[in-house]
Amino acid sequence: MRENDIYPTVAMLTDFGLQDIYVGVMKGVVLGIAPQARVVDVTHDVPAHDVRAAGFQLACAAPYFPVGTVHLVVVDPGVGSDRRVLAVQTGRALYVAPDNGVLTSALEEDPPEIIVSIENPEYQLPSASATFHGRDILAPAAAYLAGGLPIQRLGPEIDSFVTLSIPEARQFGHGAVDGKILHIDHFGNCITNIPGTMVEGQDSLFVAVGIHRVPGLYPSYASVPSGESVAVIGSSGYLEVAVSEGSAARVLGARIGQDVHVSGE
Amino acid sequence: MRENDIYPTVAMLTDFGLQDIYVGVMKGVVLGIAPQARVVDVTHDVPAHDVRAAGFQLACAAPYFPVGTVHLVVVDPGVGSDRRVLAVQTGRALYVAPDNGVLTSALEEDPPEIIVSIENPEYQLPSASATFHGRDILAPAAAYLAGGLPIQRLGPEIDSFVTLSIPEARQFGHGAVDGKILHIDHFGNCITNIPGTMVEGQDSLFVAVGIHRVPGLYPSYASVPSGESVAVIGSSGYLEVAVSEGSAARVLGARIGQDVHVSGE
Amino acid sequence: MRENDIYPTVAMLTDFGLQDIYVGVMKGVVLGIAPQARVVDVTHDVPAHDVRAAGFQLACAAPYFPVGTVHLVVVDPGVGSDRRVLAVQTGRALYVAPDNGVLTSALEEDPPEIIVSIENPEYQLPSASATFHGRDILAPAAAYLAGGLPIQRLGPEIDSFVTLSIPEARQFGHGAVDGKILHIDHFGNCITNIPGTMVEGQDSLFVAVGIHRVPGLYPSYASVPSGESVAVIGSSGYLEVAVSEGSAARVLGARIGQDVHVSGE
Repeated sequence: MRENDIYPTVAMLTDFGLQDIYVGVMKGVVLGIAPQARVVDVTHDVPAHDVRAAGFQLACAAPYFPVGTVHLVVVDPGVGSDRRVLAVQTGRALYVAPDNGVLTSALEEDPPEIIVSIENPEYQLPSASATFHGRDILAPAAAYLAGGLPIQRLGPEIDSFVTLSIPEARQFGHGAVDGKILHIDHFGNCITNIPGTMVEGQDSLFVAVGIHRVPGLYPSYASVPSGESVAVIGSSGYLEVAVSEGSAARVLGARIGQDVHVSGE
Repeated sequence: MRENDIYPTVAMLTDFGLQDIYVGVMKGVVLGIAPQARVVDVTHDVPAHDVRAAGFQLACAAPYFPVGTVHLVVVDPGVGSDRRVLAVQTGRALYVAPDNGVLTSALEEDPPEIIVSIENPEYQLPSASATFHGRDILAPAAAYLAGGLPIQRLGPEIDSFVTLSIPEARQFGHGAVDGKILHIDHFGNCITNIPGTMVEGQDSLFVAVGIHRVPGLYPSYASVPSGESVAVIGSSGYLEVAVSEGSAARVLGARIGQDVHVSGE
Repeated sequence: MRENDIYPTVAMLTDFGLQDIYVGVMKGVVLGIAPQARVVDVTHDVPAHDVRAAGFQLACAAPYFPVGTVHLVVVDPGVGSDRRVLAVQTGRALYVAPDNGVLTSALEEDPPEIIVSIENPEYQLPSASATFHGRDILAPAAAYLAGGLPIQRLGPEIDSFVTLSIPEARQFGHGAVDGKILHIDHFGNCITNIPGTMVEGQDSLFVAVGIHRVPGLYPSYASVPSGESVAVIGSSGYLEVAVSEGSAARVLGARIGQDVHVSGE
């Protein structure tokens, strides 16, 4: 889908952090090629080299961006190796990313229509480095796409790309579900890999997190008194364990990757 | 006041931090509705759930934004409870925020002309969640206002809103003032709740911070040698205790909420 | 060089961090004066008051920004003293910064054509404070320049400015070079002050970092197995010591300012 042509949005998601110039330099490159683009930060604080975490964040964020957004995703432990760099056009967006599986979840929900391997040096910075493809190859590609370049100009069409196996929650009888904590946010809320659809409709359940039993489902964090734990379906549609006006990560001693178990009453 | 229509500014202030996708997703929502908006970060590092701190930061920042700016403020420990969500039009700006008192100081300096309770689902994301009104209700409202929607379309007009009592400095005779440290900034400068107007004109004073006596008023941090403490009227108009090229918080062992006492010589 | 007039870019580099409102307020000031400007963050996490570090980051970043970009640089330990504030026009950009040497490296690579001392109060905020010239003097100056104001209007032309001595790497015979670690990035990569031109072409060398001997030159981090150390010419053109998918700073115990020594095999 190509829209958003007057005000194209380039949405950046990286593991670069903000203390260096890397993110700023990529924005400079984008604006040099597509001065009319709006560059938006999705986040740059994905754990370093964590392709799975980046893929989860991307899949949660992408549906909220305008149709035609170019998602510029750089979590790239293999930079300089022979891994490919992809540009993907879907029904509602464009993606530019290393071919390391980071697009797996996003493209499950928003299937690819055209995939190309970015190889055309005409749309790269001259003398591309081997250590910062984000600046030299991916940012220019995203900018040219934002400016309306047909995706096929970036390189040859290909028909497969690297996918990662995503750990899936398992559903048993009587409302029981096994899952994992995928992400702990700034507030200490623990987001699991259990889709809300697996648990919603249950009047009453418990989520076991280590030795703790967290009651749910409540509609919101504020449904329980301040300081108490609560299970909700979070804003990205996944089961989430929280503490009202507090940090579930701290109160429950939870960590990323930890197993959780849902049981009906 | 409605201006700023060609290049409307949406200024975001939240306690979301930048490590999650929450801020980025809100920007995606804003740009989907008002592609011509410029979204600016005031800060996202207000301490989690700290409505008072957010209100102070907002009141200090708002006067420096263009007339017609839409201030999108999301510090919202009561999300999902029955607290209202407000849109406010003043003589120089628009504000969208939960009705929890976060606007108290800003609206003292820039009084409201119209206040509405945001209730019209037509201007919200479909199927708004109960855990992320910032994305589903507040960001869309800010974007529609930035796009020129009359504020009354968002919901019914109301004539009161929640206010917080703000701890005020107390002035005694002979130049003496009692106050508190409200904020410690990135440099370790300690910003008090003592308005500069209470102390300016005094040739010489001391600010007691714990066991330390900090001399003032100096015009700037650089008025004293590197490493020495200094009291100035800071950039937001409040009395501030600093250390030249150093951290007053560290040198003086100061903390937020700590009492300070000003005495003339 | 004056271009970039339809979509002028203002690129900010400060040591303000993002937890306060300072950066947001400067953006508000810029957009109030030049609503058409795009404000881009280079970084705000330069170590507090570290003029040399800021100058290095600026020189690395500036070449990647569009021609006509206004670089707004505020690392200003002398704010409020009698140090001047500069506006500089070069062959490809404009710079606004305190006159403390922060522009030394950037202007070596992009020599000044016009330098003015910013003094005209007409282009400052009314009643400029003595503690936040970034907001009251530098941001307005950058915004007026972005809007097309001739630089001479900001104040009198001058013909000299403060420069800092930059520690330079020293080259010996047989491929030996002495240098220092200038910057450690978010990934733990250690960027030295040794220009790639001093070592490139050497098939095989070692970089001594404390007790460690790091082999190079490899084309990229991924040239060695995960967890192994590697010397590369980094993305800014300097010799860099890294660990594949890991942190060289942690693995090698490296720190900023540490001596490094390159030897041929």
